[in-house]
Amino acid sequence: MRKHLLPLALLLTATPALPQASANIAAGRAQPSPLAPAEIVNAAPKTDWAAIAASDLLVMDLAPDSKGKPRRVVIQLMPAPFSQGWVSNIRKLAAARFWDGTSINRVQDNYVVQWGDANAEDKAKAKRLPGDLAAVPESEYITTSPFGVVRKSDGTPLRGYLPESIKAADPYAERFEFVEGMPFGYMKTQELGIVTKTWVEVSWPVHCYGMVGVGRDMPPNTGTGAELYTVIGHAPRHLDRNIALVGRVIEGIEHMSSLPRGTGALGFYETPEERTGIVSVRIGSEVSGLPAYEYLATESESFARYADARANRRDAFFIRPAGGADICNIPVPVRRVK
Amino acid sequence: MRKHLLPLALLLTATPALPQASANIAAGRAQPSPLAPAEIVNAAPKTDWAAIAASDLLVMDLAPDSKGKPRRVVIQLMPAPFSQGWVSNIRKLAAARFWDGTSINRVQDNYVVQWGDANAEDKAKAKRLPGDLAAVPESEYITTSPFGVVRKSDGTPLRGYLPESIKAADPYAERFEFVEGMPFGYMKTQELGIVTKTWVEVSWPVHCYGMVGVGRDMPPNTGTGAELYTVIGHAPRHLDRNIALVGRVIEGIEHMSSLPRGTGALGFYETPEERTGIVSVRIGSEVSGLPAYEYLATESESFARYADARANRRDAFFIRPAGGADICNIPVPVRRVK
Repeated sequence: MRKHLLPLALLLTATPALPQASANIAAGRAQPSPLAPAEIVNAAPKTDWAAIAASDLLVMDLAPDSKGKPRRVVIQLMPAPFSQGWVSNIRKLAAARFWDGTSINRVQDNYVVQWGDANAEDKAKAKRLPGDLAAVPESEYITTSPFGVVRKSDGTPLRGYLPESIKAADPYAERFEFVEGMPFGYMKTQELGIVTKTWVEVSWPVHCYGMVGVGRDMPPNTGTGAELYTVIGHAPRHLDRNIALVGRVIEGIEHMSSLPRGTGALGFYETPEERTGIVSVRIGSEVSGLPAYEYLATESESFARYADARANRRDAFFIRPAGGADICNIPVPVRRVK
Repeated sequence: MRKHLLPLALLLTATPALPQASANIAAGRAQPSPLAPAEIVNAAPKTDWAAIAASDLLVMDLAPDSKGKPRRVVIQLMPAPFSQGWVSNIRKLAAARFWDGTSINRVQDNYVVQWGDANAEDKAKAKRLPGDLAAVPESEYITTSPFGVVRKSDGTPLRGYLPESIKAADPYAERFEFVEGMPFGYMKTQELGIVTKTWVEVSWPVHCYGMVGVGRDMPPNTGTGAELYTVIGHAPRHLDRNIALVGRVIEGIEHMSSLPRGTGALGFYETPEERTGIVSVRIGSEVSGLPAYEYLATESESFARYADARANRRDAFFIRPAGGADICNIPVPVRRVK
């Protein structure tokens, strides 16, 4: 009953590499490239990289490791208009030095690392929160826009080159898009107006590896942002649209993902000694000597080529291109500016 | 331009929980359950659990951690007919004590942990491999069967209850299936016979978190099985059909996923001191005192309910069921037999 086929992809790999024609990319037909994704990223022109403002970074310094090495985690905050209620709270919390002296309290394998005030549940011991934090409604988990129009944070329509064939294959959304370096799911729906129904699109940030979210209690609580987590395993996308996402780790996630797993329920540490201390959390513009960072512009042709190569590896190690990729298997490249 | 919708899922969560009717599950209409996935697993009857034979386990004991705690990793080997050339090699390597005294040599964040002989590339220092290892052809990365017939390892057709709507949403395959506790992608294709073309299905194991694969050199090399890796990040499914998968970690993956990341290229450790030693690797039937393990039978009704709940969380924490799940976000539950 068991037979063997010729590799399906021999035909594909035999296709000669065509010159990269931007007209074809713009039409959603990214050219087959024999380059590995990292090679495409390395060859991307400077104009295809976008700067991340230091004021949009959150810089968390953990206590040094057992050998005395510093452990810094750099997080890019979610651009407007997404999740801005929580992002605003987070800016206030950083300005108030709320996280200084708190700790990483939970490390659950293949799931999340979570940090904040370990005594938050104990009113006698809990750190005082800044008084002006917003209580953000659940409706802010999603954002709506006119059907088919994806917008960047400055309001201009997004014009990306990512092939529709890749974007349409998502088990959790009708399609996905990257907007300013962040992953989003999209779904069209009808909105009731006074007279007519109009089609709109709903979008929401996606729980990929390294995304940063807001811990919360049971609904309708949505969390303030004082308790944060990051994803350290396979994308837990059942959390999408159920919890706020406020950014993603762009450097230093290994300082969190390699921590010992907690042995309590949900991966919480059972003793205070197991926790990793947080020395300070600051907005990047307050940190002296911070490198400048940029991401491969998700609206650029280079990004489309990179995504196509992630979906269809044609470099020498591979014998069969996958023919697709899920959004979380297309991590957005970030680099320090030299 | 920004408006807010009512949560789409309010309608769904308002649906009363119906009694679980097996006829409906069998028809691919798993009943909405307000239970969390873990609660469904805990309530599954004994008959919905399947034993894993000790002879199908690979037990790897790492050197104790810095506090002297033992670190054991238990791997379930891939059932027939999948990847059996490499599995057979692995049984020979374990019988020859090949891995005793070798090490974990590579830990790449959000990707893989890899182990084996750190000196394999150095002919003067490399450990000698057993002489009778098979050179397995690339054609063994996939398995074919008559169209629409998924078979278990004893040859009987698989009859699972997983809803088609969940299985059909996969960016890397036409649909997915679980077979005896392991995740597989499926795709139909035509096979040329002498006279006619017949439809067949191609299947292959999928690179989910914790799956174990065979390191290899450039194609057409397929690896012997002496060099193994496990996935410790988001599913790198571009590796599917390009590398052999031989099993999955069912216990102790945290001993690998929490190791310090290697700072060399591809996450290899740069000095021998950074490596974690492997004390021994044995087939489970050789290990005295090993607990018995079982997995939630992927052909059972309980598994279908569990998968449906993973795709549509209706327990109290959630306000919007996702409406789908990718195969790697439905990890197959495993337990020790009490």
